[in-house]
Amino acid sequence: MLHSDPLLLELFAIFVWAKVFGEIFEQLSLPAVLGEILAGVILGPYATRFINPGPTTYSIAEIGAIFLLFTVGLETMPKDLVRVGRMSLRVAVAGVVAPFVLGFVYLRWIRSDPLHEAIFVAAAMVATSVGITARVIGDMHLLQTRVARIILGAAVFDDILGMILLAVVAGVASATGIQWIQLAVLFAEAVAFALFMIFLGPRVIGQMRPGLERLSIQNAPLILSLAICLGLSVAAERIGMAAIIGAFFAGLAFAEYSKEWNLQPRVNAINEFLAPFFFFSIGARLDMRVFSWKIVAASIVVTVLAIVAKMLGCGLPLWKEGRRAVLQVGVGMTPRGEVALIVALVGLQMNMISQPAYAIVLFMASATTLIAPPVLRVLLKEEAEAVVADEITAGS
Amino acid sequence: MLHSDPLLLELFAIFVWAKVFGEIFEQLSLPAVLGEILAGVILGPYATRFINPGPTTYSIAEIGAIFLLFTVGLETMPKDLVRVGRMSLRVAVAGVVAPFVLGFVYLRWIRSDPLHEAIFVAAAMVATSVGITARVIGDMHLLQTRVARIILGAAVFDDILGMILLAVVAGVASATGIQWIQLAVLFAEAVAFALFMIFLGPRVIGQMRPGLERLSIQNAPLILSLAICLGLSVAAERIGMAAIIGAFFAGLAFAEYSKEWNLQPRVNAINEFLAPFFFFSIGARLDMRVFSWKIVAASIVVTVLAIVAKMLGCGLPLWKEGRRAVLQVGVGMTPRGEVALIVALVGLQMNMISQPAYAIVLFMASATTLIAPPVLRVLLKEEAEAVVADEITAGS
Repeated sequence: MLHSDPLLLELFAIFVWAKVFGEIFEQLSLPAVLGEILAGVILGPYATRFINPGPTTYSIAEIGAIFLLFTVGLETMPKDLVRVGRMSLRVAVAGVVAPFVLGFVYLRWIRSDPLHEAIFVAAAMVATSVGITARVIGDMHLLQTRVARIILGAAVFDDILGMILLAVVAGVASATGIQWIQLAVLFAEAVAFALFMIFLGPRVIGQMRPGLERLSIQNAPLILSLAICLGLSVAAERIGMAAIIGAFFAGLAFAEYSKEWNLQPRVNAINEFLAPFFFFSIGARLDMRVFSWKIVAASIVVTVLAIVAKMLGCGLPLWKEGRRAVLQVGVGMTPRGEVALIVALVGLQMNMISQPAYAIVLFMASATTLIAPPVLRVLLKEEAEAVVADEITAGS
Repeated sequence: MLHSDPLLLELFAIFVWAKVFGEIFEQLSLPAVLGEILAGVILGPYATRFINPGPTTYSIAEIGAIFLLFTVGLETMPKDLVRVGRMSLRVAVAGVVAPFVLGFVYLRWIRSDPLHEAIFVAAAMVATSVGITARVIGDMHLLQTRVARIILGAAVFDDILGMILLAVVAGVASATGIQWIQLAVLFAEAVAFALFMIFLGPRVIGQMRPGLERLSIQNAPLILSLAICLGLSVAAERIGMAAIIGAFFAGLAFAEYSKEWNLQPRVNAINEFLAPFFFFSIGARLDMRVFSWKIVAASIVVTVLAIVAKMLGCGLPLWKEGRRAVLQVGVGMTPRGEVALIVALVGLQMNMISQPAYAIVLFMASATTLIAPPVLRVLLKEEAEAVVADEITAGS
């Protein structure tokens, strides 16, 4: 009903509160996203019950997640994958494998969590959210350094590997017990999907270009990208993956054309409207009361493991470059963000993880995101001073 | 559920089909919007039942309507209202009063429709959708002529008057019988709302500017405009108006800052995603079977009345300028668009109009939109040739 609809009030309240909390966090030099999630935790149905999101709001939040991952994909240039070189690839693979293995071992064999839950939480420990690191490095004018290029390069692979892992994990966990053949099929499917979207996707779209230019409809490239984003989301669901995986790969395929077609600012505008509903609902689904001392302890262990494992994984290939480089890259790859949250959400919705496990992932994602920037600033201080000194020398 | 959700498939199908029909219409030099509506009629639950939109889709469609009217508001510069002068104001007022009176007389006294239905359909006959006319005039390079300026100026008032009328009509119709005091209160409320948003709204926002610039959050102006759009939609509902009226007035208040803050392309991107769901659902709610010969006849009468009344209303103030100017302005003001559709939708949702009345409004809106452009092109042919001749003279 257009008339006296509680939905509109709900959307208004969520949007405003998410943004108010986001702004407060930004003022405190903390990531705005964590503020938006905290708004959901505090105002949501498990705490003050000030806002109790209805099913339509959750649906809108899921469309928000789709556009969020579409944007992540748009920012990941497949061409860069070739350029960043072997070191980034090695860092990324080791940085994905180590947290998954360490996380799984702890959860399954020490905590004795159910198999599917251990798999999901371990998968959530994998994907780096490089945006925060990139901002820190950018603020310090160090984007041109070798360390920065390794981090940003590795993050490109990292997202893709994280998505493939989620696809496999969601497929395997939903089956009864692990069947190795099914696992292999799912893995092959996910890798094929990724390779197709990386190598053939951009070409297919390139071949559509002359046709697109003949279209009379306004904003044809934007419309095509939105249609393909929705279409691949549906397709991903149909073959047993999460919808967001399709959205991410759709973004990958369009990344090369993002600048030419001016897609990013416009998809970002859609995001700006929809993402707060996603982050708020991530928080609203968290019941803070599950944080018993035992769960807090487990959260801390998982957080430490996520940091140490990333450091180990990323450090191994960089061993020869000295402890300093290992630490910088390891801390730079530490923040876990939207992908971890989405893995947790998918797990919660598939009934694959419990509220405590969901809480552990949220804790880990928030803590790694909070800890990394200040530590990274300290670790990069010398380099930043060198750059400033260089500039002064060059200027004089 | 992120997993195997029929909603995503539904959204994908609606988005693609709406755009395919829109493109076909554009290729035939017809307005794309009519194609999107037709997609809803043909594929919707009353015809082929290929797509049966669920409640979430209808909710998304309504958010689409809110952003649509927000954009209409953003494109209406309150400052222009002062500039366009008295002639445009007179043309607009007469052009609003005449269709409402003629429509009401026909529906209530000749067809003997129920009072509330006659009011709603007559209100839908009022508001011009000037976008199509503006495109025709622009294509003919006649935007600088006096006729064009009168039309575009009148259209600014026209939208505002249409919104005030809808506010009054929806309030009155939902009460039991017309009470003159209530009508006066509603009218005063709507006018006060309009005046506030036109004269004080931009100033209030202007005073927020220094504060906005201090915010750390990204895209603060866009976020503020989205929040106020949602907030005023809620406020409008609370005082008994339709949500879209609040969205329209929110757009008005931001129109002055739209360019400085780069709002329009970004709000347009949100629109690009959401509007197809609105237009499709407008079509999907139409049961074509109500078009008995009697209803077709009534639709034609209402369409003719809408055209003739606009011509009479706009012609009266222009009488001295000759038959040609009267015809050009009258035909230019003929197309009815989103506002008429939204009035009909609000009426349908409030149970104030029946399916046949809904069908009549859709027929009228589509027919006026289809007829006006070719007729206008013929009427403006001489002027266009004069412009071309001038350019050749100037060029030689």
